[in-house]
Amino acid sequence: MITNRPLKIEAMGTYLPKMKTSSEIEAQFGIPQGWSEKYSGVQQRHHVTTESNGLMGAKAADSALKKAGLKLSDIDLLLCAGGTFDYPLPNQASIVKKEMKDGEKYEVPAIDLDATCLSFVAALDFASRMLGPQMQRILIVSTETASKGLNPSNWETTTLFGDGAAAAVVSYDPSGDSHVIHSLQKTYSKGVYEAMIRGGGNAYFFKDHPYDQELHSFHMAGKNLLRLAKKHVPKFLQEMYAEIPFSIEETDAIIPHQASKMGIHIFTSMYDFKPNQVKRSLERYGNCIAASIPLTLADCIASGEIKRGDTCLLSGTSAGFSIGGILIKY
Amino acid sequence: MITNRPLKIEAMGTYLPKMKTSSEIEAQFGIPQGWSEKYSGVQQRHHVTTESNGLMGAKAADSALKKAGLKLSDIDLLLCAGGTFDYPLPNQASIVKKEMKDGEKYEVPAIDLDATCLSFVAALDFASRMLGPQMQRILIVSTETASKGLNPSNWETTTLFGDGAAAAVVSYDPSGDSHVIHSLQKTYSKGVYEAMIRGGGNAYFFKDHPYDQELHSFHMAGKNLLRLAKKHVPKFLQEMYAEIPFSIEETDAIIPHQASKMGIHIFTSMYDFKPNQVKRSLERYGNCIAASIPLTLADCIASGEIKRGDTCLLSGTSAGFSIGGILIKY
Repeated sequence: MITNRPLKIEAMGTYLPKMKTSSEIEAQFGIPQGWSEKYSGVQQRHHVTTESNGLMGAKAADSALKKAGLKLSDIDLLLCAGGTFDYPLPNQASIVKKEMKDGEKYEVPAIDLDATCLSFVAALDFASRMLGPQMQRILIVSTETASKGLNPSNWETTTLFGDGAAAAVVSYDPSGDSHVIHSLQKTYSKGVYEAMIRGGGNAYFFKDHPYDQELHSFHMAGKNLLRLAKKHVPKFLQEMYAEIPFSIEETDAIIPHQASKMGIHIFTSMYDFKPNQVKRSLERYGNCIAASIPLTLADCIASGEIKRGDTCLLSGTSAGFSIGGILIKY
Repeated sequence: MITNRPLKIEAMGTYLPKMKTSSEIEAQFGIPQGWSEKYSGVQQRHHVTTESNGLMGAKAADSALKKAGLKLSDIDLLLCAGGTFDYPLPNQASIVKKEMKDGEKYEVPAIDLDATCLSFVAALDFASRMLGPQMQRILIVSTETASKGLNPSNWETTTLFGDGAAAAVVSYDPSGDSHVIHSLQKTYSKGVYEAMIRGGGNAYFFKDHPYDQELHSFHMAGKNLLRLAKKHVPKFLQEMYAEIPFSIEETDAIIPHQASKMGIHIFTSMYDFKPNQVKRSLERYGNCIAASIPLTLADCIASGEIKRGDTCLLSGTSAGFSIGGILIKY
């Protein structure tokens, strides 16, 4: 069912910590020079030095507000959409808000949404359903630190992931043409254990399970995930576009989650896309978990690659195992 | 602005692990007999033995579905609303779904919402805004394990917290009379550090900060939190009821978050409530974080204390520091 729910991305902001080239990463962890670009496709990414998720998110959020010409007091809800966090408690949104310029001044509710890598996509979907006369503006912030949970003996993840934050001010503007055309998410629970950090929650509690590189690092069964994606993504996107009056290949811009070089390759090779139709940031940012899609979107808006009136599909897979997509008219 | 957004709680389910009396806890941790009931107000609570958040949540969710006469395939969204988790990644909702009877069979999207202790309240609010012809039923699950993050040298928290899960099937039924009358949340960021678990996220990452009872346990600055509550709760509830055609004292049932004996006492002493108007479960369950409010609500519905047509306020404070409330007609 297509709805055309009004949602206007007023402005976006981003924050990236210090850049780290693949050559530096390779030298640091004894990985052969050139391995990262060849296998992960990542030339450079950014890793936190002193930054927290909270600080990065606050900087991206304040930047988005400034660009939109708005203050935090104009916002009805701060929604932090991501998979990593500074503290087990309180929620990340409270920490982001505290670090924002006017965070202590205004009493905007601060709530987290977690759909791992699809958190920004899910947040846009939730926002489009919640926006209305009573909730006119939502500030969505995806801020992720992936670099701390990496296992240096796993070259694939060590070279792949990056840190960063992106924020979007979205508003209810039924008089304009910006809207969500359609959105969909599905969780395929057979794949639940294919990507996870096992240690550090209640299942393997710190007290009983001291730090262990294997237990506390991010693991993904890359081949199984690609198999799940190959099996389910085409059917998912077919369902997604079933009632849309244009095809995925006729969508102006496609922003896939920057999961991996192979993941993006398999996805793009399923369709007959034009050059530059599928937007990438993997080479310069790596996989930044939930921040990847909004970082890519923000860059495309800033460069003019995505313009008002363009149709844009944000889609990807996430741990869980889920597939999600949102088709917007920017 | 009052909206009367349709939202019907079709059915609720709960799960509680093994009961633990205060006498047992006191014997276990060298706390004087009677201390818990006197100071925390908790006579008994339930603590997990082998259960995970996922298992407890799945049992509560399956029970709610069964009582509603529905299957997981009738649900449009599984929303896991809580502050604790089995794994840092993937999200808790994916784990709950995997553990449900038909979790692998259906592809219902599984997404987390975290507003710490107010997560169920926030989830009801989000649900009431999202429900409509396109999203007709949401399964909200609050499943919490508090017992693992307790510091036995802190008698206040050790005797106060309990584990458990509660789930609610909520539906869009514009023909009926069940609805959300009003809802509100505010985050007062000056209180952000008054309740937290510092260690175990990116800020104090396991690798650099081995398990330490102080660092990895839940801390609350009880007196500061009570001061914040005293200062802000009356104004918050005044704003909440500003346009409601009846007062908080005329609301049929009040379910405060079961934060602490003193917290509930201060709240109730602000108003002229009738006996049994304010519902309690602190004595039998302790503070179960986000599961406290729905556990209490489920019990009141089961016992007939809350009936169709009754007005009911769910409200409380949470780490962040936030105050939230939702006024429903059940």
